[in-house]
Amino acid sequence: MLGKVALEEAFALPRHHEKIRWWAGMFSTDPDKHAAEITDIAETRIKYMDKHGVGYTILSYTAPGVQDLWDPKEAQALATEVNDHVAGAVKSHPDRFGAFATLSMHDPSEAAKELKRCVTQYGFKGALVNDTQRAGPDGDDMIFYDGPEWDVFWSTVTELDVPFYLHPRNPTGTIHEKLWAKRSWLIGPPLSFAQGVSLHALGMVTNGVFDRHPKLQVILGHLGEHIPFDMWRINHWFEDIKKPLGLDCKLTIREYFQRNLWITTSGHFSTTTLQFCMQEVGADRILFSIDYPFENFHDACSWYDEMHLNAIDKTKIGKENAKKLFKLGAFKDSE
Amino acid sequence: MLGKVALEEAFALPRHHEKIRWWAGMFSTDPDKHAAEITDIAETRIKYMDKHGVGYTILSYTAPGVQDLWDPKEAQALATEVNDHVAGAVKSHPDRFGAFATLSMHDPSEAAKELKRCVTQYGFKGALVNDTQRAGPDGDDMIFYDGPEWDVFWSTVTELDVPFYLHPRNPTGTIHEKLWAKRSWLIGPPLSFAQGVSLHALGMVTNGVFDRHPKLQVILGHLGEHIPFDMWRINHWFEDIKKPLGLDCKLTIREYFQRNLWITTSGHFSTTTLQFCMQEVGADRILFSIDYPFENFHDACSWYDEMHLNAIDKTKIGKENAKKLFKLGAFKDSE
Amino acid sequence: MLGKVALEEAFALPRHHEKIRWWAGMFSTDPDKHAAEITDIAETRIKYMDKHGVGYTILSYTAPGVQDLWDPKEAQALATEVNDHVAGAVKSHPDRFGAFATLSMHDPSEAAKELKRCVTQYGFKGALVNDTQRAGPDGDDMIFYDGPEWDVFWSTVTELDVPFYLHPRNPTGTIHEKLWAKRSWLIGPPLSFAQGVSLHALGMVTNGVFDRHPKLQVILGHLGEHIPFDMWRINHWFEDIKKPLGLDCKLTIREYFQRNLWITTSGHFSTTTLQFCMQEVGADRILFSIDYPFENFHDACSWYDEMHLNAIDKTKIGKENAKKLFKLGAFKDSE
Amino acid sequence: MLGKVALEEAFALPRHHEKIRWWAGMFSTDPDKHAAEITDIAETRIKYMDKHGVGYTILSYTAPGVQDLWDPKEAQALATEVNDHVAGAVKSHPDRFGAFATLSMHDPSEAAKELKRCVTQYGFKGALVNDTQRAGPDGDDMIFYDGPEWDVFWSTVTELDVPFYLHPRNPTGTIHEKLWAKRSWLIGPPLSFAQGVSLHALGMVTNGVFDRHPKLQVILGHLGEHIPFDMWRINHWFEDIKKPLGLDCKLTIREYFQRNLWITTSGHFSTTTLQFCMQEVGADRILFSIDYPFENFHDACSWYDEMHLNAIDKTKIGKENAKKLFKLGAFKDSE
Repeated sequence: MLGKVALEEAFALPRHHEKIRWWAGMFSTDPDKHAAEITDIAETRIKYMDKHGVGYTILSYTAPGVQDLWDPKEAQALATEVNDHVAGAVKSHPDRFGAFATLSMHDPSEAAKELKRCVTQYGFKGALVNDTQRAGPDGDDMIFYDGPEWDVFWSTVTELDVPFYLHPRNPTGTIHEKLWAKRSWLIGPPLSFAQGVSLHALGMVTNGVFDRHPKLQVILGHLGEHIPFDMWRINHWFEDIKKPLGLDCKLTIREYFQRNLWITTSGHFSTTTLQFCMQEVGADRILFSIDYPFENFHDACSWYDEMHLNAIDKTKIGKENAKKLFKLGAFKDSE
Repeated sequence: MLGKVALEEAFALPRHHEKIRWWAGMFSTDPDKHAAEITDIAETRIKYMDKHGVGYTILSYTAPGVQDLWDPKEAQALATEVNDHVAGAVKSHPDRFGAFATLSMHDPSEAAKELKRCVTQYGFKGALVNDTQRAGPDGDDMIFYDGPEWDVFWSTVTELDVPFYLHPRNPTGTIHEKLWAKRSWLIGPPLSFAQGVSLHALGMVTNGVFDRHPKLQVILGHLGEHIPFDMWRINHWFEDIKKPLGLDCKLTIREYFQRNLWITTSGHFSTTTLQFCMQEVGADRILFSIDYPFENFHDACSWYDEMHLNAIDKTKIGKENAKKLFKLGAFKDSE
Repeated sequence: MLGKVALEEAFALPRHHEKIRWWAGMFSTDPDKHAAEITDIAETRIKYMDKHGVGYTILSYTAPGVQDLWDPKEAQALATEVNDHVAGAVKSHPDRFGAFATLSMHDPSEAAKELKRCVTQYGFKGALVNDTQRAGPDGDDMIFYDGPEWDVFWSTVTELDVPFYLHPRNPTGTIHEKLWAKRSWLIGPPLSFAQGVSLHALGMVTNGVFDRHPKLQVILGHLGEHIPFDMWRINHWFEDIKKPLGLDCKLTIREYFQRNLWITTSGHFSTTTLQFCMQEVGADRILFSIDYPFENFHDACSWYDEMHLNAIDKTKIGKENAKKLFKLGAFKDSE
Repeated sequence: MLGKVALEEAFALPRHHEKIRWWAGMFSTDPDKHAAEITDIAETRIKYMDKHGVGYTILSYTAPGVQDLWDPKEAQALATEVNDHVAGAVKSHPDRFGAFATLSMHDPSEAAKELKRCVTQYGFKGALVNDTQRAGPDGDDMIFYDGPEWDVFWSTVTELDVPFYLHPRNPTGTIHEKLWAKRSWLIGPPLSFAQGVSLHALGMVTNGVFDRHPKLQVILGHLGEHIPFDMWRINHWFEDIKKPLGLDCKLTIREYFQRNLWITTSGHFSTTTLQFCMQEVGADRILFSIDYPFENFHDACSWYDEMHLNAIDKTKIGKENAKKLFKLGAFKDSE
């Protein structure tokens, strides 16, 4: 399919090249290639996009990123630098690239202000944040965004009418660390990423964020980070058991997925799981994505392009849903 | 379907009736009924079984149970008491009830010894353990069973040729507690149960337990506690990325499910999710279960009995797989 | 779900009551009830609709109907009588009932004219025709509508901008009869209905009807009369093999389903098959229907209402798709 | 997967090479290649098998074959010639090839006798017959095998304890011809094949063949020739409606599939449809097949090998089911 849109696509700052190459050795079989690909925004990326039929990419700063900085000032400075950096690249290729704002999540008002700057000044398409914000004097605390103190931020997000992508982060430097140390092969995509984001996203549900901000649109990667699997079970406990005991959510979990939540195919190129999510979440709320350069264009795009699926849903998931959600103008093969 | 077998079916000690009634108020809309049902082993249960076509039940001591006791002696004493208690009931109704051993998991050898006693002396069908064992002077530690120090225990399990059911436990009293405090509606079936067991079970995989004990059979409830959802993604990272980096598992995650793992339908009465698991895990490794009295017989059995499914797999999942796995003799409607 | 729309819902003329009762003995266990229900348009039907959450029904004259009359004048006279009859009922309950025109299909221009009369004069929602028109001096011939001589008819259908429902008919009186005589239990819903409509609908595809009438909207009942099952195989042969040999269809079979074809759930209340059709056809082209009084409201509606499915697609299939396709105004619980 | 078994794999007699080349022009883009491949039994085929991981092939004479000969003597002579011909090839490669007997179906006793000769003398694995036998003075009649006069044949099949493969045939020379003439693109795999076999197979069900021959094993290609799609609907009408009216089948349609019917993947390499059939028919009754040389090894094998499916069912469908059904000994990579 030509003109696909991809939304969980990472870049890093060229000045971090060395650090990235070192870090990439922990999860990549070719750290040099990874470091080269992630620090390049346009050149290599556009070649891949052209080769694999991706018309438009929304760029985001790589995880753990700013969420790993527990010093608020340092975090804010990095966020600004990253946003200014990517704004230039997007400006050079407006028909191929958009960007998600990178945000320091130490202070709700500050985060809202930076998001507003990125959207109004640079035309960014929303924000992508890496799960909880590392905080505290030694980086041992975790800030969740599901409490009432974040209402000011969510109000700005909905006023700007842009989506918020809740991306995973390693459990580094948190109370989780002990648990994962002896199970380090499970850190990242095999398990910890999804566990962190699922807790955070369902925390937003049960703590009423979507009730107070009914227009808020939150995107989850990796086909929903385990939540679709338990849609029946969550619904059963929320509606049949916990609701009588006092859970005061206004909608059912299915209705929040209908109104507020989106999932992407990033890093999960399984036909069977996608089909399952089409039953539980629905093709209207599923968006194609790659997770480049942690995953490669070929795996994602050849899977998607060759998959046997009705033409309407294939077009929606591949591009049409994204075009509507992000109000995209013309881009390559966008038709 | 007549003659179904159910395997995640809880009982409690009658002497804890008051405590259970109080505790049940946190998750049940009718704590009195719950306390009455769980402390009764045979009378009410057999009526339900007869009404809903369940021929045989394997009983297990309710969670968190012995895993919540951080004093080793106290834990061991309770395990013994529970096993002796349920042995009597099973003896009275050998054609309707079997039992899983309850174990204190403070010491691998002691756990192995008690399991052996239960299997050889009482004919128990295996063990059911509630995730990690709470430990430490204040109960703040968690013992996992995925390290080499547990090989002595797993050797006994395989020598006795009985399955081991890894059941969830609340994150009470652990380092998790902080995370869940502000998201308390997610504790239990909606999220924390599956996150705990998934980590533990995949820890067993990556730490080589199934490589050192290739005959070990481990059962996971709730249709696999999220793991089947990520089968593609886990396999992708274990095989394509982590294996080149040093993960030394002998088999793929799919092959461990083929050889060592089972899942049950306990508490997850969703046709769509079951169908998905039939693709990812296979009908030969799926077992019907209820999770009584946390779930009721009617929900589980009317769902299963009315479900539209080919006759071979329906019979396997409903009873035949369990009959083989537990080497069951004749029971009501077992044909 | 309240406000469901149903579209394959039959009525008969009260003056045929006796004949229907006799005929119903061949396929109904309660011919009296069937005859009473099918000859009543509004009274009993509205009670069922209210009880089972059906907001709006599009009525159609029962099969084989006019397609069984091989005398063209007789056929035309009956069609006119039927249309005038149902127009009255629809007029009395405009917020609960619409109608499909009944057509004699002996002559394309005449059929077009009667359809135009029904749509412009009575506000009918389209036409429902029962597979091939029986014809010839002894009723041994079958008229298909897939040849160029029917272009005049299809032009009128698209000009009027209304859908055409291709409904099954018994193979009575045709060259098929010999085949089915010794397999009479297969006549009707178990096999012959779907075989007839599949041939006719795919004949329209391969004979270019949808290429010459790209706006034509054709509805198939019973989840697509076998065609979705073979979507891959049809596509494989049409595109990979037959196309090089000269098949000159402009689109692929998947694209015709995307642009021109719809399927309904009439008489096929299977969650598994619906899920499969959501993959092959897509939820945007699937419409709830019952097939009353050959099927009953309870079977159809309790199945649909209790089915576990994402909220977006459930609403679309249950009512939203029909509201758009038929440009329906307000009706009971239509929201 | 290595060691796959394939069962709907055609050969033709070398002396028909010219005729085949001419005929192949109607359905193949490369008639020369087709004619060369189908008249070669071992040489090219073994190369393909080795390249694509097929360990064992059961050969069958190509359709329409003997079923197209309306002269009984001519038919019987061809059957004998074909069986003797393939027996030689099988004898040369017993670890790679088995064969299905080719039968003239004009006379039940004669067909039984020839089958017995092939099984006892040559070790054939069963029979493959191409739908109805063309018959009558001008070839206008069709012999079905679902009447009581065929009991003598079915008794022999079950005594020999071998399966019977019911393969499609073109509707050439029959009362169908008129219907298909103007829809010739639908003849063969897109529609007519499945319609013919479905009628015949369900005729066997409703006419009691499986009640009188409970051990009979019948294999249908192309994932069941539409029947699985309508499993719910057939069951609904057979059990709820037709049974009260007198249909006297002893089992339900689901139970016949459980006990007597098998389906293969021949010519239908769709993951979605296979998954659906796993629900409706069950992995224990599904067998891998190609339909070579009408389909090619690459399409079938790369689809199957790359498909994402649990390891148990993948092995069963790919080889284990066939090994049990045909009591196969050791063959290449059979483990």
